[in-house]
Amino acid sequence: MRIPKPISRLIESFERLPGIGPKTASRLTFYLLHTPQEDLDRFADALTALKTGTQLCTICKNVGEEAQCYICSDNSRDPKTIAVVSSPLDVFALEKTGYKGVYHVLHGIIDPLNNIGPDELFVDSLLKRLSGLEGSVELILATNTSMEGESTAMYIQKLVRDSGFESDAIKITRIARGLPVGGDIEYADDITLSRALEGRLEY
Amino acid sequence: MRIPKPISRLIESFERLPGIGPKTASRLTFYLLHTPQEDLDRFADALTALKTGTQLCTICKNVGEEAQCYICSDNSRDPKTIAVVSSPLDVFALEKTGYKGVYHVLHGIIDPLNNIGPDELFVDSLLKRLSGLEGSVELILATNTSMEGESTAMYIQKLVRDSGFESDAIKITRIARGLPVGGDIEYADDITLSRALEGRLEY
Repeated sequence: MRIPKPISRLIESFERLPGIGPKTASRLTFYLLHTPQEDLDRFADALTALKTGTQLCTICKNVGEEAQCYICSDNSRDPKTIAVVSSPLDVFALEKTGYKGVYHVLHGIIDPLNNIGPDELFVDSLLKRLSGLEGSVELILATNTSMEGESTAMYIQKLVRDSGFESDAIKITRIARGLPVGGDIEYADDITLSRALEGRLEY
Repeated sequence: MRIPKPISRLIESFERLPGIGPKTASRLTFYLLHTPQEDLDRFADALTALKTGTQLCTICKNVGEEAQCYICSDNSRDPKTIAVVSSPLDVFALEKTGYKGVYHVLHGIIDPLNNIGPDELFVDSLLKRLSGLEGSVELILATNTSMEGESTAMYIQKLVRDSGFESDAIKITRIARGLPVGGDIEYADDITLSRALEGRLEY
């Protein structure tokens, strides 16, 4: 069984993507065989320009087109409320809530099983950024509530304190863990329910 | 919420692919932001070369690199046993069975709901091919067993007969419908089970 080289090359490229297996990769490739060359060229251009056309914001490391992203350049936002997130996708999600602070994008999460340590993340730039701020700052640790997300949050909390930033200058908070809105107590798992109890607020 | 243009362009290209929604499209795009430029360029090259580097076999319309595909050029195969399939992916699947005949790839299936009629398929070339063959020929209708696949098979059967090819010159067969190997009679649907009974073979 011989697959033509131009086809197998594209299948291989698709297979490298997360969540795309050999079957999906060939299905996508054969689908593209029936699309106009124009569309293929547009797709290819978008791929090559993805990184050349973007850069990381010098302040928050979010992906943007300019040296300073539109969030960091927005004077109406509070530069002293910083949500630490692991990916630009998390920024998009938080932006939908109407959050009016700024961000710091780590571009990863501490994950020893996949060989990702703190050195791979933008934590140095976070410390540098904090030392440049005066007055009371709030650092909201908004990483996932997965094990890796919790470890990363814990690591950053410790690092900030160990670097000499005291709690009167920098308040560190963690997003609430609890029942998602519309959730059933009956079906909630033990850990989520314990967290929901611990984090209860006065009514 | 503003997504940088180079990112939104790639998300749009991914979204055009079948089975890829907005969430997956952005997940893939942000994943690619962390891959080397080299890999992006390779992916882009594979996309642009997909169609320019391939052509349809002049005989069977399968996708290949030369004017005549490796299956049609293979003298050890029986050129008078022709499996009619709707896509090159079906050729790959049938090749795994050790089938020793040849193929005719329709590049589609008759699907009125999606505005795909017989004119969109390679049926004229099938008739032309059949008129060039002498002696007894077997045409195996190996389209899917979905409603569209069945209609396409039925259409081709009728067309071949209406074009004056009699059953002594061209035998038309349809792949068997029945229980998949390892299947449970208990869980089989009515139609499959009826087909399995109708198609029973002497033991």
